[in-house]
Amino acid sequence: MSESKPRTLGAILYPQFELLDLYGPLEMFGCLEPDVEIIPVAEKTGPVASTPGIETVAKFDFDSCPPLDMLLLPGGIGTLPQLANEPMLEFLRKRTAAAEVTMSVCSGSALLARAGVLDGRRATSNKLYFQLATSQSDAVDWVTEARWVEDGPFVTSSGVSAGTDMSLAVIAKLYGRERAQKVAVMTEYEWAEDSARDPFAKYLNQAGQILG
Amino acid sequence: MSESKPRTLGAILYPQFELLDLYGPLEMFGCLEPDVEIIPVAEKTGPVASTPGIETVAKFDFDSCPPLDMLLLPGGIGTLPQLANEPMLEFLRKRTAAAEVTMSVCSGSALLARAGVLDGRRATSNKLYFQLATSQSDAVDWVTEARWVEDGPFVTSSGVSAGTDMSLAVIAKLYGRERAQKVAVMTEYEWAEDSARDPFAKYLNQAGQILG
Repeated sequence: MSESKPRTLGAILYPQFELLDLYGPLEMFGCLEPDVEIIPVAEKTGPVASTPGIETVAKFDFDSCPPLDMLLLPGGIGTLPQLANEPMLEFLRKRTAAAEVTMSVCSGSALLARAGVLDGRRATSNKLYFQLATSQSDAVDWVTEARWVEDGPFVTSSGVSAGTDMSLAVIAKLYGRERAQKVAVMTEYEWAEDSARDPFAKYLNQAGQILG
Repeated sequence: MSESKPRTLGAILYPQFELLDLYGPLEMFGCLEPDVEIIPVAEKTGPVASTPGIETVAKFDFDSCPPLDMLLLPGGIGTLPQLANEPMLEFLRKRTAAAEVTMSVCSGSALLARAGVLDGRRATSNKLYFQLATSQSDAVDWVTEARWVEDGPFVTSSGVSAGTDMSLAVIAKLYGRERAQKVAVMTEYEWAEDSARDPFAKYLNQAGQILG
C-alpha cells in the first residue's frame, strides 16, 4: 500500500561515519520504495569517506537539501570532530525541528546531544563511546541498557547493528508492523523487536577490554 | 595481532546492487583494519548507484584493480543484467581463480554460477531469487536450507542479512574465532554462528506471498 507522497529520509554523511550505522537502516527503508526517498546529504556535496575508506556520494549540501521528513544520523569515529562543527550542529537543530522522525545510531546521539535537541528527553548511545554521549549534556536522561530508545520524534539506538532493529521499529510505527515484518523476511533479517532487550549492556565500561 | 601484509578485499559494485549485501560484510571486515584493505571495484570507475539510488564510489575498474586476496560479490535486482555482462563474468573467472576467498551474498551466487566457477561445488542463494541462481548451472549442488555454504575458497550466503553472519565466519577462519567475536561485540551484532541454521528456509518458493 503506497502513500500518496513519499517521505524523504535524509542520510546525513560526514567523514569517517560508521558504515553499518548508515546502511543497516538504509537497507530497510530502501525496501519501502517508492514510499520513501533517500536523500544523501553532507556539509559539502561529493564523495564522503567512511571509516574504512569506501566512499558514499552526498547529492546535497546543508543548504541545498530538500525538506526532510526523517533524519538518519550515523555515528563512528568521525563523530568527534563533528562535535565542534557548528554548520553540522545548526543543520541538526534546524532539520530535527521540522522532521517527523529523527533517528541516530551509535555515537550519533552524542551529536544530537551537543546540538541540544535531546535536552529533557530519554536517549541512548553505543557501549564503546557511551561517555562521549553523556558528556555532551546533563539535561538528557541517558539510558544505559536499551537496544534503542524512542522519545517523541527522537529515536536513538545503541551501537552499529542496533540501528537496523531500530529502523524496523520506526517502519512498523509509520507503515505498520506487518510491513516491517515483510521487509525483515525479504532481507532475511532476524529482527530483534524488543527495544529494552540489550545483550551488549554488560560490555558497558569495558570498552578497553573489548578492544584489547 | 596484525599480519605483516594486509589482505585486499575487492568490493565488487554494479548498478542496483543490494546495500546490505555489500555493507554488512564491509562493516565487519572494516573493523580488521589495518589487516584488511577494502578495494571498491566496478566495470567503470566512479559512482555506482544501489537499488534505492544512493551511490558508492568505485576507485578501480576491472583492468586497474590491484590483486585481490578476497572477493565480495553482492546480489540484488541489478544481478539480472550482469548475467549477460561478459566483462563482469570474465573478471569473476580471472579473479576468483587467484583469490584466497570468494564471498557472495544473495543473488551474487547466480553470477558466480553463470561464470561457471561454482561447478562441482555446493552453494546457496537467497530465498527470493533462488531459482535465478539454480537456473544458471546444473553442475552446482544447490543447498536450499543454509545461512551460508562454504566449499573450498567459495563461501556463498543466503539473502541480504545472511552475508553479515557469513563474513564473521570468514573472519573467524582467517583471523581466529576470538577476533570475530570481538568484532561482533564492537558492532553490537548478535552473530548467528551456525551456517546450517536457516530461519528463512520456510519462505522458499513463497516469494510472491512475501512480496504481496
